[in-house]
Amino acid sequence: MDLFEAIKKRYSYRGKFKDEKVPREDLRKIVEAGLMAPSGKNAQTTLFMIVDDEERLKSIRDVMPKVSVLHTTPALIACIIDKEPENIYLNYSFQIEDCAAATQNMLLSISALGYSSVWLDGILRRDDNYIKVGNILNIPNHKKIQILLPLGKEVEEGKRQEKKSFEERVCINNYNL
Amino acid sequence: MDLFEAIKKRYSYRGKFKDEKVPREDLRKIVEAGLMAPSGKNAQTTLFMIVDDEERLKSIRDVMPKVSVLHTTPALIACIIDKEPENIYLNYSFQIEDCAAATQNMLLSISALGYSSVWLDGILRRDDNYIKVGNILNIPNHKKIQILLPLGKEVEEGKRQEKKSFEERVCINNYNL
Repeated sequence: MDLFEAIKKRYSYRGKFKDEKVPREDLRKIVEAGLMAPSGKNAQTTLFMIVDDEERLKSIRDVMPKVSVLHTTPALIACIIDKEPENIYLNYSFQIEDCAAATQNMLLSISALGYSSVWLDGILRRDDNYIKVGNILNIPNHKKIQILLPLGKEVEEGKRQEKKSFEERVCINNYNL
Repeated sequence: MDLFEAIKKRYSYRGKFKDEKVPREDLRKIVEAGLMAPSGKNAQTTLFMIVDDEERLKSIRDVMPKVSVLHTTPALIACIIDKEPENIYLNYSFQIEDCAAATQNMLLSISALGYSSVWLDGILRRDDNYIKVGNILNIPNHKKIQILLPLGKEVEEGKRQEKKSFEERVCINNYNL
């Protein structure tokens, strides 16, 4: 699929998924796109886990029963980063940026391959959910799950959120917003 | 260009640019891709500035004379965020993630349109460079430039950094890295 088409097609889907497995080949292609994203000083700080084992998925659903998109998802991709990241440049780590860039590559790939997803992040930070999900997946103590992407085929198209206009967010050669 | 091709093509280019203006139409298309990226709670926190005015570009070069990719760049895209971001969910802001996702959409668009770029971030945080560049572009005091993307046509292909393998960064259903 054309890049610009994929960028337009992507949106946050929170509906039901069809009862269809995502082939491992597609999951691999999506995560490979994540691996190819840039990272600060090429440190490649984000690690990934593909989760498609039904028992694991069920345990994760039980941690966040109110997150309806998890109820029917046939697969998840977890982005894993360090709890206490190394400084990469001056006293900065870039692992939040690294992880977000990889996630965006994966979301576009998910759309291009005919699947839908939503970037789950804040909910993991509530009630120590990232620790509970981490325990299910045997994430070591010094690491944490930062982002979860459920993915599958849509049952029906979800609602797209409205975006502000170009004029509201973009200026040229001088700040005037 | 196909999404996966654009993902593969993108790399961090730090070489010289051809002495060719980037048409405004292309700059607009690139920033529009940034606008379409997801953002936490759809808050759309990132603002953008296109800089292609030669005088402004020269002043920015003078702030960071050692950043050679700036010497010949015919244009820049600046991503602008809040110095003290609002909490969007619990006590979290997602503006770093928002800004990174938008940047990744723009980097892929830059590649797809035949241009090259590099994600400049850390260098802005050194020696208060973000403040100095912000002053040139009249960025208000409560905002800051987080990321700068120089872009143009390559004079010659640059060196690609090596990436770790799939096996080094990806696991399935259980953490074993």
